[in-house]
Amino acid sequence: MDVKAAIAFEAAKPLTVETVQLEGPKEGEVLVEIKATGVCHTDAYTLSGKDPEGLFPAILGHEGAGIVVEVGQGVKSLKPGDHVIPLYTPECRQCEYCLSQKTNLCQAIRQTQGQGLMPDGTSRFSVNGEMIHHYMGTSTFANYTVLPEIALAKIREDAPFDKVCYIGCGVTTGIGAVINTAKVEAGANVVVFGLGGIGLNVIQGARMVGANMIVGVDINPAKRPLAEKFGMTHFVNPHEIDGDIVKYIVDLTRGGADYSFECVGNVNLMRQALECCHKGWGVCTIIGVAGGGEEIRTRPFQLVTGRVWKGSAFGGARGRTDVPKIVDWYMEGKINIDDLITHVMPLEKINDALDLMHKGESIRSVITF
Amino acid sequence: MDVKAAIAFEAAKPLTVETVQLEGPKEGEVLVEIKATGVCHTDAYTLSGKDPEGLFPAILGHEGAGIVVEVGQGVKSLKPGDHVIPLYTPECRQCEYCLSQKTNLCQAIRQTQGQGLMPDGTSRFSVNGEMIHHYMGTSTFANYTVLPEIALAKIREDAPFDKVCYIGCGVTTGIGAVINTAKVEAGANVVVFGLGGIGLNVIQGARMVGANMIVGVDINPAKRPLAEKFGMTHFVNPHEIDGDIVKYIVDLTRGGADYSFECVGNVNLMRQALECCHKGWGVCTIIGVAGGGEEIRTRPFQLVTGRVWKGSAFGGARGRTDVPKIVDWYMEGKINIDDLITHVMPLEKINDALDLMHKGESIRSVITF
Repeated sequence: MDVKAAIAFEAAKPLTVETVQLEGPKEGEVLVEIKATGVCHTDAYTLSGKDPEGLFPAILGHEGAGIVVEVGQGVKSLKPGDHVIPLYTPECRQCEYCLSQKTNLCQAIRQTQGQGLMPDGTSRFSVNGEMIHHYMGTSTFANYTVLPEIALAKIREDAPFDKVCYIGCGVTTGIGAVINTAKVEAGANVVVFGLGGIGLNVIQGARMVGANMIVGVDINPAKRPLAEKFGMTHFVNPHEIDGDIVKYIVDLTRGGADYSFECVGNVNLMRQALECCHKGWGVCTIIGVAGGGEEIRTRPFQLVTGRVWKGSAFGGARGRTDVPKIVDWYMEGKINIDDLITHVMPLEKINDALDLMHKGESIRSVITF
Repeated sequence: MDVKAAIAFEAAKPLTVETVQLEGPKEGEVLVEIKATGVCHTDAYTLSGKDPEGLFPAILGHEGAGIVVEVGQGVKSLKPGDHVIPLYTPECRQCEYCLSQKTNLCQAIRQTQGQGLMPDGTSRFSVNGEMIHHYMGTSTFANYTVLPEIALAKIREDAPFDKVCYIGCGVTTGIGAVINTAKVEAGANVVVFGLGGIGLNVIQGARMVGANMIVGVDINPAKRPLAEKFGMTHFVNPHEIDGDIVKYIVDLTRGGADYSFECVGNVNLMRQALECCHKGWGVCTIIGVAGGGEEIRTRPFQLVTGRVWKGSAFGGARGRTDVPKIVDWYMEGKINIDDLITHVMPLEKINDALDLMHKGESIRSVITF
């Protein structure tokens, strides 16, 4: 079938919006009409050419929402008409990782997904006979896409696509890190490094579970008002304090953070985030993605005296199980997504969305079809 | 009263065994007759002068067992005749740390303990009118010592002092790291870096909780037989394998360690111990103490993909609560201490015990009074 898509033909070039060919779903696969998709830093990172695993040509996009159009043989959990969110971290419920009950990093289709292919080792996308790679197993920068059944979360039908698409990555990454990875409890003091989209979702996750102090750290004071709206109780601008930021935060929190989160991808901040944790029990969760080859470091004394260093991918969320719950939370007013979606535009304007992101002028741009 | 003690008059000199004066217990304090004490690397570290918090003159020793002789005003939980193990990590059950239920690092007397003094800011030890510092709040290299009530674990009276004294540090540090810090579960694969006293106690802790593979890593093949006796199932000598030790261990454990432990104090091994952990859930616990200023490092990707880096002090054990249980385990035959105590000698020979340790010829030497 003919599909309208934004194609990344090569690194560091604008996306090209044109018609591509999409094959129908094979066994275990599902054809989805994408109704909306967010444009995320990870898409831009791959497009930049810096992603060592980036493949071209490809249809990027991993933060979508849509409707099932057709299911392939053997698909049991979904039917045409179901509303779904694509999952770049699938949940097969059968692999060693899923069954461990200790991680969300399902490995069922990891190898082919990393090769830009469907699980059978082929692509469903082509243009003028040339194969185009899938991306993160989702390829949501197209009005139709094909995904494995295990990579789709079924959601309620009254949820607006142009809002809940953000749950496909950013919202779940931030809120999930609080709930699933760090397991923040009511009354805890939380420190969040970086007040971009992920940081704001960490903040509202911390508020949702009843955190006490929610300290935001950012060098841009313009981010303060929205962060406060999302639940930040204290703002720290490292450029405005005297002396060591770690000591400042430890004093502010009367002993250190019970839970800290790094939402930037800066290895120096990752160290500060660990060391500002409370002696005896503080847990630092790294969410941000550092540049290739960069390393974190600290004195082991920090760990021996009770601090814990961990990380989170897709918020530790099991996609098919947890994503529908987060959609419910949005519909029930427990979390705010509307204020994070700063721009909505058609696919033809997708390069504008990338520009806005690079300039820091958007939190999240959403493409609607 | 007159007491026989080994005094560290200055750094990097042998200990001097002579008679010192000991004042009786003040309010909240307890006079204990020490019946046996282990000689630990930490004593040697402080004696070497490398410990930045080391104070001289001092009576070292922190791994003792003995009998209560006299209690000061207000002491309610102990009475003369009780058998006790001194605790360098006390358990007041009232401070923020004890009440957190998240850490064993009681802070009640930390400041004065670090100054080599009793909680009232004075010392009970002197020689010829000159004050001698306490050490780690315990000073067990003396046949009598005074401790705060909160720094004594009451134990059963049928336990032999010359064995259970080792529970005052090494045994609890190793077994506790398995049980309290890492929380190893039955069926888990465990990797232990370093087969000294701590490593052997980690191994028997892992065996006690039903671990599956227990892999020991050491460059000294002579350590293999005893480690196997304690429960090691696989031995890895980094000098005897081709290629990367991390990859070797990941392959051996079919995916990586569920739990790894660093029992040496080497920052390079700390990195290997983390990186040999299983993607998604592996937990690395640092027990060894690194040199001053040394740093651990890794790529944050290791954490974002689910590995956890933590540390353990005194095995995460709450001394008054957990130490009596470990004594029971020894008496019930669940754990082996006898084979770890390689030398027993009187206080007059304590410098021989230090020499044996430096030469690597002892696991644990115990002084009996």
